[in-house]
Amino acid sequence: MASTNDLETNLNLNGMRAAIAQAKKSEAEGGIPIGSALVYHDPVTKEDKILGQSHNQRVQKASATLHAEIATLEVAGRLKADVYRNCTIYTTLSPCSMCTGAILLFKIPRVVIGENITFLGGDDLLRAHGVELTILDDINCKEMMTEFIKKHPNEWNEDIGEKDS
Amino acid sequence: MASTNDLETNLNLNGMRAAIAQAKKSEAEGGIPIGSALVYHDPVTKEDKILGQSHNQRVQKASATLHAEIATLEVAGRLKADVYRNCTIYTTLSPCSMCTGAILLFKIPRVVIGENITFLGGDDLLRAHGVELTILDDINCKEMMTEFIKKHPNEWNEDIGEKDS
Ligand SMILES: [Ca+2]
Ligand SMILES: [Ca+2]
Ligand SMILES: [Zn+2]
Ligand SMILES: [Zn+2]
Repeated sequence: MASTNDLETNLNLNGMRAAIAQAKKSEAEGGIPIGSALVYHDPVTKEDKILGQSHNQRVQKASATLHAEIATLEVAGRLKADVYRNCTIYTTLSPCSMCTGAILLFKIPRVVIGENITFLGGDDLLRAHGVELTILDDINCKEMMTEFIKKHPNEWNEDIGEKDS
Repeated sequence: MASTNDLETNLNLNGMRAAIAQAKKSEAEGGIPIGSALVYHDPVTKEDKILGQSHNQRVQKASATLHAEIATLEVAGRLKADVYRNCTIYTTLSPCSMCTGAILLFKIPRVVIGENITFLGGDDLLRAHGVELTILDDINCKEMMTEFIKKHPNEWNEDIGEKDS
């Protein structure tokens, strides 16, 4: 497990920095603070390129399905299977079952997750399908979600299909 | 298993008729012929109401994520958990892992599937989570998909994350 400190120093985590920036953008807009980025690793040049980045848009677009990961895959656009298979998807929060299913559909081989404490989604299902998971247990990600859930419990319940208590 | 004949006579299958109409609309637009509809059953009045209906939009909107079921959930908009739990989702084709995950996320208790022969998605995962499945094995649905896959194999592969052969 990488520490927050690694996140600041590891140049391969540009994807997670982009995802966190998206989450903070959503937070600033009054939206659910979850961000994501899809990074392509060129198998020849070994260079990385961000193909898409976005955030949850339940509040901003009254969207039921634009979770951060779905929104990111949508921004990345139509891609052939080979492209996805050379990608890593970064997300600030453990992916829900819908986003987990999207990762499995496109056979994205690696997922880097900011944290899975405030919500635990499909981590086990991803691992069962051979997807490589990295959980960063990032304090920034945890604080953003903890604060949002405390302030907006009903919107959060709606996003994850849970009844209000 | 209901026959195509039931589909023509059973008034409770308005949802499937809407889903097939959406698939045919997509086909006429040169898109992937898969349609879906989300039907709410009012627990008090016992009346059914279509909350959303749409079709695959890979071709029409160059969309990677607007499969018929996702597009339908998006059209239906932001809904509370209680609403989904009184819904049935109709889809002309067995839902892929992403759409299966969306159904599980929102805990939609019933799925009516036109056919699962040309593509078999998450039927088993849905059943494992207690979702009630009805497979209509509808000849119209099978013919639409068989023809599309024959004419546009690369677009179909792209939609389901498979490499071109
Ligand atoms: Ca919300
Ligand atoms: Ca297509
Ligand atoms: Zn999600
Ligand atoms: Zn799908």
